[in-house]
Amino acid sequence: MSEPSGKDRSFETALSAAADDVAQMLDRLLPRPEGPEGRLAEAMRYAALGGGKRFRPFLVCQSASLFGVAAESALRAAAAAECVHIYSLVHDDLPAMDDDDLRHGAPSAHREYDEATAILAGDALLTLAFDILADPQTHERARVRVELVRRLARAAGAHGMVGGQMIDLASEGKTLDMVGITRLQQLKTGALISFCCEAGAVLGRASPEADHALHAYAHDMGLAYQIADDILDVEADAATLGKTAGKDAAAGKATFVSILGLERARAQARMLADQAIQHLDLFDERADLLRQAAHFVITRRN
Amino acid sequence: MSEPSGKDRSFETALSAAADDVAQMLDRLLPRPEGPEGRLAEAMRYAALGGGKRFRPFLVCQSASLFGVAAESALRAAAAAECVHIYSLVHDDLPAMDDDDLRHGAPSAHREYDEATAILAGDALLTLAFDILADPQTHERARVRVELVRRLARAAGAHGMVGGQMIDLASEGKTLDMVGITRLQQLKTGALISFCCEAGAVLGRASPEADHALHAYAHDMGLAYQIADDILDVEADAATLGKTAGKDAAAGKATFVSILGLERARAQARMLADQAIQHLDLFDERADLLRQAAHFVITRRN
Repeated sequence: MSEPSGKDRSFETALSAAADDVAQMLDRLLPRPEGPEGRLAEAMRYAALGGGKRFRPFLVCQSASLFGVAAESALRAAAAAECVHIYSLVHDDLPAMDDDDLRHGAPSAHREYDEATAILAGDALLTLAFDILADPQTHERARVRVELVRRLARAAGAHGMVGGQMIDLASEGKTLDMVGITRLQQLKTGALISFCCEAGAVLGRASPEADHALHAYAHDMGLAYQIADDILDVEADAATLGKTAGKDAAAGKATFVSILGLERARAQARMLADQAIQHLDLFDERADLLRQAAHFVITRRN
Repeated sequence: MSEPSGKDRSFETALSAAADDVAQMLDRLLPRPEGPEGRLAEAMRYAALGGGKRFRPFLVCQSASLFGVAAESALRAAAAAECVHIYSLVHDDLPAMDDDDLRHGAPSAHREYDEATAILAGDALLTLAFDILADPQTHERARVRVELVRRLARAAGAHGMVGGQMIDLASEGKTLDMVGITRLQQLKTGALISFCCEAGAVLGRASPEADHALHAYAHDMGLAYQIADDILDVEADAATLGKTAGKDAAAGKATFVSILGLERARAQARMLADQAIQHLDLFDERADLLRQAAHFVITRRN
């Protein structure tokens, strides 16, 4: 395994700094464990502050930086997106869903607490995301806040992430083709990644061209991310991955690797990452970390 | 059992008309069963269109009518509130929570479908509520829409409904006192009822006085509603109630009846209903149905 180059190192430093910033913001925004409902806040904090790459918050902050958005605004929108991501992991890990005991190298929320608490913690994290976005502290203009709410709801709901999870569950044991699995992933993971990349444009009241460019970037980069995920699921072990490895193959689920094979999947991910970078051509060097992010998603090891 | 009086009949006609209107609006707003994720839309529709008093939507429409709000706006906000109510029932009925097989006289969502689908349908209904509120069709002013989003998120989240459900689960087998159970109910059911009564004021850009009056009305009426619920849980059978009866007592949960006894619980509900009506003194006869609603909640039979 080669050492990261200087460029990779600066990217990883930036990713890690964004992760620290958003964890601090989440700590500020999450409820404190108090009163007889304290267990709920504890479980929310356990799930939200227990680690993770914070790649989605990074995308919000980087897209916001293209338009000179205030750090506080960007971090609040980033925290909201992360709340939605974390809620989805908490619910996906439940016994009735993927039944996963391990998350970020630690017991998943329903193993650390119990199923009922995990369901409620997920519900409360999803709700908190909209609370954060609607708060005047996120942006002074109501029109901007409500546009963020609307886009997040679309990305997270039946026509987005939840719809994708339904397809995922419904397709166990069935043979998905390339069109089917691409749509599944665009809903399940792509829609929220698109929200993250577009959030900066909304906060910065960017031109429609810039908004569309970030949407196109997110589309290709998100798909590359998911193909890389499938490759990692085949290649990595649980210790590196911090979650159960090989579970898609064990569940008989179609993946990009099972459809394309390992080599073609790798080539496809590279092609998509290159294409994602091309969509950023109208931005100057402030988009360099987003460009590096497209490279990062296909070379990461967890 | 006495026949309803003329006033009761006109109230019940109005409640039933609002129920029809909001069911039609929900039918318009819910996703259609299409594609491999069709099961999700089916389960959402099963849970949302399968009946219920639609008392919360009625409150939204009635509070909106005090300020001359357009019917379309009021019904959209009403549908959003009902989506949150339905999602809470779907999740509360899950085996890991209250484990209830019966809802509106039919199998609960996880019995009709399965647990995973019920979890996802609840998630998608909660998300849809914010999507509806944030949509420009709900109100032309972004400031109004985002205020609705914010109040609904507060009412539904960790400091509202989900927090109340956590207290409810945590208090099984424990002895709650009157203060404890009142707070539980204010979070678990009162917060959403307050949202419904205030939604009209937000949509109608009412004065702070009118907003506060509706909040105070909702507080007392919501508590009366819950005390009446506890009385029904003791007295009614499942056929009348359309859900499992006597389950709180069976679970060893403290209720207003177990703390106050039946007679004092009845007196307390009556007192709260009267007090709720007094908070409406600044409104004219357009608030008459809200006044009757306070009477209805303590005399209903399911």
